[in-house]
Amino acid sequence: MPTHVQIPAHLKPKGTSGQRLLEIERSKASFSSEAMAEWLHGREYLDRQRRLLAIIEPEEAFNKSSIPYLSHLERRKFALRKEKRFTQLAREHGWTTEDMQMAENLIGVPGQFKLHREMFLETLRSQTTDEQKKLFLEPAQNYEIIGCYAQTEYGHGSNVRELETTATWDPQSREFVIHSPTLTSAKCWIGGLGTAADHAIVMAQLFSDGKNLGPHPFIVPIRDRKTREPLPGRIVMDIGPKVGLNTVDNGSVIFDSVRIPHVNMMARFSRINADTGLYEKPKSAALAYGTMTYIRAGIVRQAGNVLASAATIAVRYCSIRRQFVDRDAPASDEQKPAETQVINYSSVQHRIFPAFCQALAFHFTARDMTRLYQANQGAIGSGDMSLFAETHASSCALKALCTITTADQLEMCRRACGGHGFSSAAGIGAAWADYLPQVTWEGDSYMLPQQTTRYLFKIFRKLWADPAATFDHNNATIDYLRKYIEDTSASSKIRFSGDLHDPAFFVAAFGHRAGWTIGTAVRKRDIERKTWNHLLVEILRCAKAHAEFLTILNWAKALQEDEQLQSNKALLAIMSTCFELYATWLLDANAADFMQSGYLDTRQCELIRDRSYELLGEIRPQAVAIVDGFGLSDYYLNSALGRSDGHVYENLILHGVREPVNAVKYNTIVDDPEIVMGEPPLAKL
Amino acid sequence: MPTHVQIPAHLKPKGTSGQRLLEIERSKASFSSEAMAEWLHGREYLDRQRRLLAIIEPEEAFNKSSIPYLSHLERRKFALRKEKRFTQLAREHGWTTEDMQMAENLIGVPGQFKLHREMFLETLRSQTTDEQKKLFLEPAQNYEIIGCYAQTEYGHGSNVRELETTATWDPQSREFVIHSPTLTSAKCWIGGLGTAADHAIVMAQLFSDGKNLGPHPFIVPIRDRKTREPLPGRIVMDIGPKVGLNTVDNGSVIFDSVRIPHVNMMARFSRINADTGLYEKPKSAALAYGTMTYIRAGIVRQAGNVLASAATIAVRYCSIRRQFVDRDAPASDEQKPAETQVINYSSVQHRIFPAFCQALAFHFTARDMTRLYQANQGAIGSGDMSLFAETHASSCALKALCTITTADQLEMCRRACGGHGFSSAAGIGAAWADYLPQVTWEGDSYMLPQQTTRYLFKIFRKLWADPAATFDHNNATIDYLRKYIEDTSASSKIRFSGDLHDPAFFVAAFGHRAGWTIGTAVRKRDIERKTWNHLLVEILRCAKAHAEFLTILNWAKALQEDEQLQSNKALLAIMSTCFELYATWLLDANAADFMQSGYLDTRQCELIRDRSYELLGEIRPQAVAIVDGFGLSDYYLNSALGRSDGHVYENLILHGVREPVNAVKYNTIVDDPEIVMGEPPLAKL
Repeated sequence: MPTHVQIPAHLKPKGTSGQRLLEIERSKASFSSEAMAEWLHGREYLDRQRRLLAIIEPEEAFNKSSIPYLSHLERRKFALRKEKRFTQLAREHGWTTEDMQMAENLIGVPGQFKLHREMFLETLRSQTTDEQKKLFLEPAQNYEIIGCYAQTEYGHGSNVRELETTATWDPQSREFVIHSPTLTSAKCWIGGLGTAADHAIVMAQLFSDGKNLGPHPFIVPIRDRKTREPLPGRIVMDIGPKVGLNTVDNGSVIFDSVRIPHVNMMARFSRINADTGLYEKPKSAALAYGTMTYIRAGIVRQAGNVLASAATIAVRYCSIRRQFVDRDAPASDEQKPAETQVINYSSVQHRIFPAFCQALAFHFTARDMTRLYQANQGAIGSGDMSLFAETHASSCALKALCTITTADQLEMCRRACGGHGFSSAAGIGAAWADYLPQVTWEGDSYMLPQQTTRYLFKIFRKLWADPAATFDHNNATIDYLRKYIEDTSASSKIRFSGDLHDPAFFVAAFGHRAGWTIGTAVRKRDIERKTWNHLLVEILRCAKAHAEFLTILNWAKALQEDEQLQSNKALLAIMSTCFELYATWLLDANAADFMQSGYLDTRQCELIRDRSYELLGEIRPQAVAIVDGFGLSDYYLNSALGRSDGHVYENLILHGVREPVNAVKYNTIVDDPEIVMGEPPLAKL
Repeated sequence: MPTHVQIPAHLKPKGTSGQRLLEIERSKASFSSEAMAEWLHGREYLDRQRRLLAIIEPEEAFNKSSIPYLSHLERRKFALRKEKRFTQLAREHGWTTEDMQMAENLIGVPGQFKLHREMFLETLRSQTTDEQKKLFLEPAQNYEIIGCYAQTEYGHGSNVRELETTATWDPQSREFVIHSPTLTSAKCWIGGLGTAADHAIVMAQLFSDGKNLGPHPFIVPIRDRKTREPLPGRIVMDIGPKVGLNTVDNGSVIFDSVRIPHVNMMARFSRINADTGLYEKPKSAALAYGTMTYIRAGIVRQAGNVLASAATIAVRYCSIRRQFVDRDAPASDEQKPAETQVINYSSVQHRIFPAFCQALAFHFTARDMTRLYQANQGAIGSGDMSLFAETHASSCALKALCTITTADQLEMCRRACGGHGFSSAAGIGAAWADYLPQVTWEGDSYMLPQQTTRYLFKIFRKLWADPAATFDHNNATIDYLRKYIEDTSASSKIRFSGDLHDPAFFVAAFGHRAGWTIGTAVRKRDIERKTWNHLLVEILRCAKAHAEFLTILNWAKALQEDEQLQSNKALLAIMSTCFELYATWLLDANAADFMQSGYLDTRQCELIRDRSYELLGEIRPQAVAIVDGFGLSDYYLNSALGRSDGHVYENLILHGVREPVNAVKYNTIVDDPEIVMGEPPLAKL
């Protein structure tokens, strides 16, 4: 990237260098960050990351630090160039799906082909016949056609059944007629459709013989591949700038009675018989729900990664930034008392240490969700639906909890970086903006958890009627609800902070709290006869309490059952300390529930809060080593503040040195219509 | 603005139009939105707004809807053009300071002259001698010089005493030498310095005769006014893109022994005697602290306005957006059961109704802060410092509470807008990004409240030693602390939801809770001998509890004492209902404190939570009228979702129609180095 300002090389940051400060921090660690990374991710993952970084990092087309300077138009050019180069490299190196996913994640610049790869190809693979695979999947795999997945409309996102786009079977011509009857029926937010896609999978209400058969997917050509002009009857556009993700070309399309042949209805699961016009029914939707669980497990895993990156940036920068003098601070190079590192403030620790603990909690939870997903898919394959309801319900609640927490905590980490956190060079702001849609898509995180609570109510009612009731499959939800119902007035006996070392205390406490939350809501619904809508806030609380219980349970299990962890005492110790901070912090944040349920009294809650403060101090010397243990590369972080080498100030200044505004001069004379010197003046101010 | 796509005019949104839906909502109001606006703002304010909007809205230079499409460079051009036109109009219409402030706020595009007007001119006015006013203030008022205020450095923001830039008095040449000794001493984040300013007020450590006399302000020429080249010894640059506020040219400067004459030290309060080299001391800093109170009252007022705008957008859009069928929903034009308005979900109400209640709370609080500021300034003027400590302490806590709440709730309102909330057309995302620095500047909202708690501890200790202790001035803080200390085990007697109609209950409850929070922290500090740093989280809790008490108190007083409100029963009724929602919602969100302090038991807390749900239902039919009552113009809101005419979908689509990406075509062939068709291909992908 070009530079526009010369900074004298002799100027150095004041005091001990950032590099040295991080070295000092790292020397205090009681465990190996490398061992932590290997335990979290496995050798294969880390090797893959190293191999891909060596290819990705030197590529000019992937140099993402230029993006903040670009206009909306230029970002799209950057992204398309990246997509082309990415596709070339994938071909050249024979990247697998896992390679592609990790490479996309490392580069972090989702572009015009993202949905082609992740949704168009995937849907073609899973929902087409062999004939359709030949016609559409093969050219799509070779990028001879570029596709997108067009479901959302201006008027409908969550409620897919009310989509307005129609696909009407015309028995005469043996074609489907795709049509947008209203302005709200225009497809929108469709990634790839804004500029790139020449084909779309369009979800439309299928009509045959005057009968509405519900939403179905159709393959609809959109643009001429060569001229890029929309085909007749399609009005296509990019929907305009967004809060984030502006390298993706989210688009809109309006259809005016567009005709497509019979073979363009995706026909693996349901079809219209071209001869009779009769509808042939779809199979069970359970496998499709299974896919959603898979996607949600991915969302939880990604939440952990994103949160880990923000925590890494905040912990490293707060270890380097110093503000105000404290007696305990290390002496600087000049041997006079230096200002204290910001990370020494307990109020800073209280904001950023929970962030990396949550990242760990989500990591263990994603791992467990993946296991559950696999078990469920296996069971469904052999006709056993017993795992399905739990898998679906828990994945909904966890998706909601993890996305909301991550979005909120990213911003918390950004604020902990003080003034420089507001610079694009900090690397948190744009990541945050790009992260936000996760809260809304794949089931709005404030709506979706209703599905969890419906399931929880069902189990609760059955156990309430008969605490000894049996189920076709046992699971942790049934366990904690049974325990709660067997003793609704249970209370904890803890008296000393030492009682908090045992993860089993927190598993029991969060289980009881979830049971109480659900029981209270069931009472309001069944006894007080409150409407579902009146109780929505309580209903979301139930799902949140359930999801928080699961994060506690999954981490506790990892501590107790993971053999690799058991064999590394130093790592086990720090993971146990992080767990205790996560659990005490989370309990303190929700203390009202624990008191109202009678499980903890006010003294016990105070004990737990005080213990969480102590834990901040215990973790303090390990903080940099912990975030190092996430194994995130500098290229991925893309942050002047969070660099592993600690060169914060040099890189913050570089962010200005590269600023193209510095290459021009501005005319500030009020009445002069010239704005940039040398450019033609404006006709009118 | 040019359009690039043609949308067929016959297409309309499905069902009842947004316009009609808002009309229906407005017809349900029990009070007059106009009367509410007039009561909140006063006739003069509304008249001023109308007068200024008529001038501002037609100006092409102020058409802010084009900004999301622009590059970093283009945004600066837009902003500079706006600044020039703004200055012309101010001159032409003879705008007062109040006019200028309101006009800036309405346009909402802070640019290169913002800090010239708000900081450079203000500081010149208050801190210069008459001689200096002639030299600097007069040309600055005529925009013959453009200035900025350069305090923050890369290494120091909050801790002004540790600024590294030096100003060394050279008695030989009778000049000051301004110098940047390190990389971290480079000034940064200086609004206006990036491209516009030719002068800067530079805060630098004054040295005379080898002695450090602390930070003082100096007027330093930066650029040649005509050529725009930096003067010798200055390295000036724009610091690069930020998360928001990208129309402002935040800049950086490094000084290499720059010499300025004696007259360039701002000399109203302190100076170096040019003949002797001796330092003449500054007067009391109390007046300066007074100014900070004034600035913080402004921040609280602005927080209320910004929050009101996000709430307006969310309430209006959620009244138009429909998703999923509900039996109680009004029938649509086609006379079949329509989907329910999203605002009917209690979980949506629970997120967005508190937002407008908070906006109201901040409005009343800002009004009270302004009164207190004026009383304090008057008292200080006559040598009475008795109001100073309370004014300063409370303003710190309120600044923190209001900025954190507003930043968080803006995002909450954005999420409540679902998928379209992520579009720049929603108008919340960019407002949020621009709002964020408020949390950090003028005292970091996570550090500043320490000053409040120091004051609270002092009062507490005095009263603890002697509950009958007298003070030189009485105030609400002393009142609630005295009450708490007189009966630390007080508890409330409320039993029925009717008991919650009396604002006095909440004033007493929040007072007791603040007293308990402070008392607990004092005990930990004084009896348990915990360090200040160990207690920082508790210390922030104290300030938050205090600030929340003040928002409750100020609103309760407005209900009880405002004569204009008393004379309008319908308005009084809705303001009382909003108060009750604010108070029950805030209490529920902090229920743990009320239980731990023993003031409320678990049943009472449940009663309060249930009442808050009931209140959501009571406010539901009034919601649109309430946000109308903030009197915010469509031009100011700049939101497709929040328009007063309800034309949501037409304007969301217009956001895409104007997208310049739609004017070009992209070449998607993977191995073709052409990106935009017709533009020269890349040398390398």
